[in-house]
Amino acid sequence: MGRDLERLESRLEESIHTEHPFLTEVAGHLIRAGGKRVRPGFVIASASIAQTRPAPADDDVLTGGVAVELVHLGSLYHDDVMDEAQVRRNVASVNAKWGNLRAILAGDFLLARASELAASLGTEVAGLLAATIGRLCEGQVRELQDTGNPDRTESSYTDSIEGKTASLLATSCRIGGLVAGLDRPTVDTLTEFGRCYGLAFQVVDDILDIVATDEHLGKPSGNDLHEGIYTLPVIRALGTVYGPQLRDLLGGTVSDATVRSALQLVQASGGVQEALDVARHYARQASASLEALPATTATAALGVATAHLIERARIPLGDS
Amino acid sequence: MGRDLERLESRLEESIHTEHPFLTEVAGHLIRAGGKRVRPGFVIASASIAQTRPAPADDDVLTGGVAVELVHLGSLYHDDVMDEAQVRRNVASVNAKWGNLRAILAGDFLLARASELAASLGTEVAGLLAATIGRLCEGQVRELQDTGNPDRTESSYTDSIEGKTASLLATSCRIGGLVAGLDRPTVDTLTEFGRCYGLAFQVVDDILDIVATDEHLGKPSGNDLHEGIYTLPVIRALGTVYGPQLRDLLGGTVSDATVRSALQLVQASGGVQEALDVARHYARQASASLEALPATTATAALGVATAHLIERARIPLGDS
Repeated sequence: MGRDLERLESRLEESIHTEHPFLTEVAGHLIRAGGKRVRPGFVIASASIAQTRPAPADDDVLTGGVAVELVHLGSLYHDDVMDEAQVRRNVASVNAKWGNLRAILAGDFLLARASELAASLGTEVAGLLAATIGRLCEGQVRELQDTGNPDRTESSYTDSIEGKTASLLATSCRIGGLVAGLDRPTVDTLTEFGRCYGLAFQVVDDILDIVATDEHLGKPSGNDLHEGIYTLPVIRALGTVYGPQLRDLLGGTVSDATVRSALQLVQASGGVQEALDVARHYARQASASLEALPATTATAALGVATAHLIERARIPLGDS
Repeated sequence: MGRDLERLESRLEESIHTEHPFLTEVAGHLIRAGGKRVRPGFVIASASIAQTRPAPADDDVLTGGVAVELVHLGSLYHDDVMDEAQVRRNVASVNAKWGNLRAILAGDFLLARASELAASLGTEVAGLLAATIGRLCEGQVRELQDTGNPDRTESSYTDSIEGKTASLLATSCRIGGLVAGLDRPTVDTLTEFGRCYGLAFQVVDDILDIVATDEHLGKPSGNDLHEGIYTLPVIRALGTVYGPQLRDLLGGTVSDATVRSALQLVQASGGVQEALDVARHYARQASASLEALPATTATAALGVATAHLIERARIPLGDS
């Protein structure tokens, strides 16, 4: 898949080319900052799930990979405006560098290019990708609605991460399956894999925001608490004996010192470990989906990705 | 077409329905504020250009109309965030009412729903609409690049309005023609009509921002000058003997009094009349395109719309 991902990088660069060099520069900022390209990787792996021997990815498969990555990047542009984030992937965020106006427009542009590529893959893929962008928005609005609310429920949290994270990972796998012309049950299984992986991925991300160092994250940790976004470890911590003390630190304008105290309470409460158990549960569901798929290299690669997901949270936790 | 536009209103309302009542409310704010529905009107009229007797619009035609209106509305949501506008269509702007975060997300959601509807009309329409959203962004970035620049050229201005306004009007006509299955030359003629109409429309809009009252516009006048956006009347005024005096008032932070002085200079210079001549030129080109189309009620309706366009600028000007 290494060679495919190289081809993907050049396709990504091409995809944002316009007659306006400045727009191309702004739209390409996060592409150049690199990234794991998880979503295109899933498109490519899903498309080759039935291949008994490795073969280069089809051009249409790469197009699908570029489309989902552009959706991801476009949503990051808008997220960073909304969060007033200064740093992303260890480089200045687009809004910090060029201002909110250009970040909003460049985000719109990335989403539009993604839709244009999806259209070239047929109406089902085009409709699916558009619906997924809608789901991303729904998930984020759901999160916004509970910002600063210490009574946020776990089901509101899950609903939000289904939309804002799991939907695009599910769609990445689905597009791979659709473009490769796999049968419907296989396409549905891949979609379910992507969804469960996505849920586990976001829970791990939320754990890392609490336990990891700034360097490890490539952006400041404790950011969610700062913004009043109470994720699973916090929701679980609020249900423990540390709950009342933690609740007193939440809501309103929160100083750095308050965030540090709250982070310590969440860790002491066992909320992080509970969240890690939930992530493991989703990861197991993801792995279980893979068992229904052909035992090929691509299926194995998706299994390895799922295992790495949990590793990622365990390293800063010192969990074994 | 009255009955078709009624059906369109209910289709618009339906199009933004989600499981999240709050998102539906925010996304529906400007739909409920009303509007002339120029773009859906063009889809419907273009689709019926070959009909010798009036017939209700096909469902797919209405879908196309909803899609282009949602793109227009989504871009207004993002425009208003970027302009920090407080008022739109005589009601509070979405950002003023719910904040920038929700306005950005709801705008993304509207664009995503538009793309989803376009996908249901086939890959050509889906690709066209997505490319048009990209063109809107390009046009706006082009405008941003020249913000506060008194040396902005007329060709930069024209390039910007081609993208930010003419492209969606051209696409509205094109989608109507494509969905109705008209032959390619007719579809191309309709597209050219929409483009010229769009150029004339934007020049008139820019004239109105200079000459109209706040009540007439449904938003404060002189807004462009306030933001450092120098439109055609200003560019032309800068080329007259009033140029040096006007130039001294432009750029940097501009007070209300300075904007008023600048508006007076632009009017005194004849820049507004020159811009009106340019709008008339584009309107004539639009009308000329219509001459190549069948002489039906729909073609006549597009001709009337073009005539109204120029009327719109003449009333506040007292021009005859």
